[in-house]
Amino acid sequence: MTVIEEMGKKAKEAARFLSVAGSKKNSALNLIADALLENAEDIIKANNIDIEKGKEKGLTPSLIDRLTLGMDRIKGMADGVRKVASLPDPVGNIISGNTLPNGLKVTKVTVPLGVIGIIFEARPNVTADAAALCLKAGNAVILRGGKEAINSNTAIAKVMRNAVEKSGLPKDSIQLIEDTSRASSNQLMQLSDYLDVLIPRGGAGLIKAVVENSKVPVIETGVGNCHVYVDKYADIEMASEIIFNAKTSRPSVCNAIETILVHKDIAMSALPKIKEKLDTKNVQLRGCPVTREILGDSVIAAEESDYYTEFLDYILACKVVDSIDGAISHIAKYSSGHSECIVTDNYECANKFKEQVDAAAVYVNASTRFTDGGEFGLGAEIGISTQKLHARGPMGINQLTSSKFIVEGNGQIRV
Amino acid sequence: MTVIEEMGKKAKEAARFLSVAGSKKNSALNLIADALLENAEDIIKANNIDIEKGKEKGLTPSLIDRLTLGMDRIKGMADGVRKVASLPDPVGNIISGNTLPNGLKVTKVTVPLGVIGIIFEARPNVTADAAALCLKAGNAVILRGGKEAINSNTAIAKVMRNAVEKSGLPKDSIQLIEDTSRASSNQLMQLSDYLDVLIPRGGAGLIKAVVENSKVPVIETGVGNCHVYVDKYADIEMASEIIFNAKTSRPSVCNAIETILVHKDIAMSALPKIKEKLDTKNVQLRGCPVTREILGDSVIAAEESDYYTEFLDYILACKVVDSIDGAISHIAKYSSGHSECIVTDNYECANKFKEQVDAAAVYVNASTRFTDGGEFGLGAEIGISTQKLHARGPMGINQLTSSKFIVEGNGQIRV
Repeated sequence: MTVIEEMGKKAKEAARFLSVAGSKKNSALNLIADALLENAEDIIKANNIDIEKGKEKGLTPSLIDRLTLGMDRIKGMADGVRKVASLPDPVGNIISGNTLPNGLKVTKVTVPLGVIGIIFEARPNVTADAAALCLKAGNAVILRGGKEAINSNTAIAKVMRNAVEKSGLPKDSIQLIEDTSRASSNQLMQLSDYLDVLIPRGGAGLIKAVVENSKVPVIETGVGNCHVYVDKYADIEMASEIIFNAKTSRPSVCNAIETILVHKDIAMSALPKIKEKLDTKNVQLRGCPVTREILGDSVIAAEESDYYTEFLDYILACKVVDSIDGAISHIAKYSSGHSECIVTDNYECANKFKEQVDAAAVYVNASTRFTDGGEFGLGAEIGISTQKLHARGPMGINQLTSSKFIVEGNGQIRV
Repeated sequence: MTVIEEMGKKAKEAARFLSVAGSKKNSALNLIADALLENAEDIIKANNIDIEKGKEKGLTPSLIDRLTLGMDRIKGMADGVRKVASLPDPVGNIISGNTLPNGLKVTKVTVPLGVIGIIFEARPNVTADAAALCLKAGNAVILRGGKEAINSNTAIAKVMRNAVEKSGLPKDSIQLIEDTSRASSNQLMQLSDYLDVLIPRGGAGLIKAVVENSKVPVIETGVGNCHVYVDKYADIEMASEIIFNAKTSRPSVCNAIETILVHKDIAMSALPKIKEKLDTKNVQLRGCPVTREILGDSVIAAEESDYYTEFLDYILACKVVDSIDGAISHIAKYSSGHSECIVTDNYECANKFKEQVDAAAVYVNASTRFTDGGEFGLGAEIGISTQKLHARGPMGINQLTSSKFIVEGNGQIRV
C-alpha cells in the first residue's frame, strides 16, 4: 500500500465517524479557528520559508502576494472557519419522502459525500477554507497543495489536525499530502477505492489535467469565458457601467468578462461610450471589422482565437452581431458556460436570453462579477462548478453532500 | 473530424433546440410510440438477423432471450415511451430563489443536461427506453449498443429518428453509433467537447472500463453487493421471508442480495429456518465457521473473496456477527453501496443502521428488491446510480437534468 493509499484508507475510516458527528463538527471548527490564531506565529514562520524560497525562485510579486500570510490573513482564515461553523448543518435534511402503495415509507435524506480530494495551487489559505467546508458537510478531506506553499500548508494542516483531535473527532478527518511531486497528484487521481470526488482548484492547465486523468469523479471548476451582450434595446449607460465593472473590477477572476457582443443597431452609439469608460483603465480592445469601422484602427483586429480566450487581463474582445440570435449562437460556440449577461429593456429579449443561453449563471442587467458563493448567500464557497453534473455554479456546503434513500417497512417483499 | 465527433456536434446543436422544446417533446414521444408499432414488422425482421447470428455464435439461451423482440416486447417498448410522455416535464422547474440585499433576484431552475452518451449491452429495448427518457428531459442522446443487437438497434433508432423529425424536432436528437468496435466506444469516452455525461449500462466489466477511461463525466450504475442483516431483535419469520425474496425472486439483478449477516444471539434459531426456506430453491450457502457449526458441513466454507462477490446467482454468503456494529463494519468494508437491509424490531438498532450504513438505499424490514425507479414511483428509470455524485439510487428523468442560476437586476455592479 502506498502512502497515498494509506491516507485514503484512513480518510474513509474518519468519514464514517464524521457522517454521524452532528454538532461535534461545529466544536471542531471553532477549535480550529482558535488554534489558527493561537499558532499564528508558527504559521507565519513556516510561511516565511515559502516566501524566501519563492523569491529565490523568482516568483512574480503578485504570486508572492498570494502566497503571503500576515496576521490579518490568518485572522481572516479563522473568521472564515467560524462562519462555516455557524451555517446550518447540510447533513440529515429530508429532501423528499412518500409512502408507496405497499406501505413502504421512502425518505430521501442528505448525507456527506464521504472522502473529498482537493488539488490546489498557490494560496495557502485554501487549506483552511476547503478543509472547513468539507468537515462541516461531514466529509473527510485529503488536500494536495502546490509546492510553493508546502511549508505554510503543512503548518496549517498540523494546527487543524490537532484541533480536530482535541474535539474528539478523528485527526485524519483532515490530511495533507506533503509530497508535492506530480506523482502524488497522479496517485490521488487513481484513488477511486477511497475517494468519492476530486475537486481541482487552480488554473486551466491543472483543471484539464485532472479532468482528463482522474478515475475519481471530478467536479470541474473555474474556467470562465464570460460575455456581456448589449441588446438593441439596451440602456447604453447601464451597459457601459456593467461592462466596465465586469471587465475591470478584478480582471484575473473567472467571473470577469472576456468578450462583449453588441447589436448592430446600437453599436454606433454604444461602442464609443463603452470604449470611453474602458479607456480610463487602459483596457485593450480587440474588435471585429465592424467594431473597427466604428471605433477606428486604434482597436486591434480580433482573431478567431481571441473569442476562445480567457484573457484574465485588461483585454476585451468585441464583436458586433446582427441579432440576439447571433449573440446567443456566438455564446453557444465560444462560452465556457460560466456567466453570461444581456443588457436590455425588452421583456421578450430578456426572456429569450434567459431561456436559451446555457451557462451556470445567466444575467439580465447586472454584472457577471456576482457569480460567487458569498454574493449568492451560500455562506462560503468551495469553487464554481462549470460542469452540469452534480453541481453547477457557486458550490457551498450543500453541494458537498449526496443523498440516500431510507426505506422503512414491516416485512414487505417484492412480488 | 471523425464520424463520432460529427455526431457529437450534431447532438449539441439538437440539444439547443430540445432545451426549449416544451410540450413538443411529448408529441415526439407519442409519435415514436406510434411508429414503433407501425414498423414492428421491420424491427422484428432486423431482430431476426441478430438472433440468427447470435445462435451461430453460440450465445446462451438466456442471452438469446434478452435479445429477442417479439410483438409483445415491441408493444411494451411503445407503452413505456407513452408513459414517459405522460410524466411531468422535469425542465423549467424552480428549485429555489431569493432576492439579495442589493436587489438582485436569483432563481435556480432545472435545465437539461445537454448531450448524454449511453453505452449499453445486449437488450435492444434499451434503445427506445433510454432515448425516450433523455428526450423527455430535453437532452440529445448518442447511443452505442452492443454488436449482438446492432441490426435491431439500427432499426429501432431509424424509426425513432423519423418520428422525431415528423414532430418538428431535430432528427439528431437521437443518434445511434453503428460502428460497434471498441474504437467507437473509446472515441465516445473522449468526446468531452460535446458530451455532458456518459452512462454505461451493462456488466461490471463495461462499467469499470468506462469509469477508468472516460474523459466525460460518468454516472456509475448498477453493481450491487447487497446485504441483509438479521439483528438480535429480528422477527425470524420475517427475516427468512425477506432473505428468500431478496435472493431468489430474481438473482441476476443488482438489487438482489449476496450476503446475509446474522447476530450471534439469534443465529442458532434463525439460521435453520432461513436455510430451510432457501433450500426450496436450492440456494447454495457459503458460510463462516460459526454458520457451519450451526448448519453443518453441507454448507460450503466461505472464503474472504466470497464476501466481495456479486454472485448474481443462487449462491448466498453467510456470516455470523457479534453485534450490530460488526454488521455495519462488514457492510462498510464489502458493500458496493447499493442496497442494504436490517431486519429488527428494535427502534434503536433500526435508527443506528439507517444512520450509519452508507448506501444508495438503506432498508428496515423490507426486501432490497424494491430499489428500482418503477417501484420508487419515478415513472421510469435510466439506471441505478451507485456513486455519490449527482444522483444516487434509482435515476428517473429528474436526474437527467442540471440547473442554472437566473440573475435579474436593474444595473447592479459589484463593488
